[in-house]
Amino acid sequence: MKILIIGAAGMVGAKLTKRLADEGQLNGEAITAIHGFDVVEASMPSSGSISFAASAGDIADQATVEKLVADKPDVIFHLAAIVSGEAEVEFDKGYAINMDGTRYLLEAIRAQGDDYCPRLVFTSSIAVFGAPFPDKIDDDFFLTPLTSYGAQKAIGELLLADYSRKGFVDGVGIRLPTITVRPGKPNKAASGFFSGIIREPLAGQEAILPVSTDVRHWVASPAAAVGFLMHAATMDTAMLGARRNLTMPGLSITVGEMIEALKRVAGEKTASLIRHEPDEAIIRIVDGWPRNFDASRAEEVGFKADADFDSIIRAHIADEEQAGRLAKAG
Amino acid sequence: MKILIIGAAGMVGAKLTKRLADEGQLNGEAITAIHGFDVVEASMPSSGSISFAASAGDIADQATVEKLVADKPDVIFHLAAIVSGEAEVEFDKGYAINMDGTRYLLEAIRAQGDDYCPRLVFTSSIAVFGAPFPDKIDDDFFLTPLTSYGAQKAIGELLLADYSRKGFVDGVGIRLPTITVRPGKPNKAASGFFSGIIREPLAGQEAILPVSTDVRHWVASPAAAVGFLMHAATMDTAMLGARRNLTMPGLSITVGEMIEALKRVAGEKTASLIRHEPDEAIIRIVDGWPRNFDASRAEEVGFKADADFDSIIRAHIADEEQAGRLAKAG
Repeated sequence: MKILIIGAAGMVGAKLTKRLADEGQLNGEAITAIHGFDVVEASMPSSGSISFAASAGDIADQATVEKLVADKPDVIFHLAAIVSGEAEVEFDKGYAINMDGTRYLLEAIRAQGDDYCPRLVFTSSIAVFGAPFPDKIDDDFFLTPLTSYGAQKAIGELLLADYSRKGFVDGVGIRLPTITVRPGKPNKAASGFFSGIIREPLAGQEAILPVSTDVRHWVASPAAAVGFLMHAATMDTAMLGARRNLTMPGLSITVGEMIEALKRVAGEKTASLIRHEPDEAIIRIVDGWPRNFDASRAEEVGFKADADFDSIIRAHIADEEQAGRLAKAG
Repeated sequence: MKILIIGAAGMVGAKLTKRLADEGQLNGEAITAIHGFDVVEASMPSSGSISFAASAGDIADQATVEKLVADKPDVIFHLAAIVSGEAEVEFDKGYAINMDGTRYLLEAIRAQGDDYCPRLVFTSSIAVFGAPFPDKIDDDFFLTPLTSYGAQKAIGELLLADYSRKGFVDGVGIRLPTITVRPGKPNKAASGFFSGIIREPLAGQEAILPVSTDVRHWVASPAAAVGFLMHAATMDTAMLGARRNLTMPGLSITVGEMIEALKRVAGEKTASLIRHEPDEAIIRIVDGWPRNFDASRAEEVGFKADADFDSIIRAHIADEEQAGRLAKAG
């Protein structure tokens, strides 16, 4: 089985690559090759039985995308995207990469002909939804993106569903919650503090909380995200019918509840490193984000959310310790 | 005020052109020019004060579309599309015209620069919805097209909303019900019988009814459709916020109720020209179509449905008499 990961150099792409390498098989079939593609060359694991390859390029270039599927990978993960903030500022670039890139991929797959119908896992986003919302967004709430990124992801969903309906590809689109706790350095994303208020205190550093502790958000751990991708790659898509895109299950949790969890797991002293410093710009942005979902459909077809936020924090600590980035507790 | 109608040669386009010519103004401003564009040259009215022009070309050609907006029309109606059946068979052509054509138009408008932000009325379709449905589809039900045509229209809606949100265009997308009674010859559309069972008997000809009289459908008259377009061109779009696409109000009516109306308006003898001849293929297709909507949002912002089906039939008779296609009753 040959696997192509588009967007392999990102945080989720790297974790997915590692998980696939560790398992060595997918759906009971041995993985023979993993090709990781991204704008920069991803660092790939080394393993005896799997042939790893990394390449770099631009998915807004049609010829590049055609080359990616020329050897007919059995499973394709399409994680690549210009993120929300950048797509909003760089209008043409966002449409070129997030919309045209996705279409080029679908077209390149279709161009391979009738005998080729790979599983394609497409990462969409809860940014396909825009305020005003009901208390819980259910599985048949309409897509009303309020960002170009959200519009591009929603268009990707429609294309994925139509190309799947026509039998050109076997697609599954998954709308990821905000991934928390993201490892690594703080970034400038408006959602960055959801990770920062956990990650920085655990590393002994101060973290800024720009919103009120009442703010509710929809989150999943990096490990849960990789679990969603694995399940989307192996599930029986007959269960989905024509509706190929699913809101992934997450935890709906307030910032206050996150901080309580941090106290339970790492102690009051660690949690005291969070400093509340309201930022009106971030407050406004976050106010337009969805807070809670009823993701019944995804749960019914086997997607699993994190158990609770305490275990998300514990998993982050374990990952960081393993990576040598955090002194072992005690 | 300069007006561009893309898709001017179609039935709705021609009726819209006539209505604009008759009124001579839009929103209190005199119409100085109407340019009708289509794949074939539309026949345009002649009028003293309005300069009419017709041209033919392909909206899947980017340069053609750029030329269309070069003189900065104040209001643009975009009615052009490959219809459902053709888009399903001609996959590339459907995407080229229905998706790329719409995007080229939006891009051509944006390319004119900051001072140009015309009203753009885009005709979408209830084909953006796909079964299974609730009894009534409300304004926040999700878009789940089951045809490539529906997917292309849904993508057009997302683009229209995003380009409007960014201030590049002032867009209104209207999802038209099935237009009934369509004048002219029977066509091969699966929905054709909804018009045929009224039009043919009124012309003294037999009509085939391929489905059961229990079948419920969502319809509007050609005149109501033109009314929707006029209102979309003149309404205050501030009422729409970021949600620029609306399901138009229609009549939810069964075939049996349509036939009862025909009896009331034209008599038992006319209605007896309808012959029931079940067609399994059409029954299956029609079964996947939406039947009923709660179009509250459109009604709240001033879109008006037909009063009842009797008046739709009477308006059709009056139109046909005026066109000399129907002997005057009595």
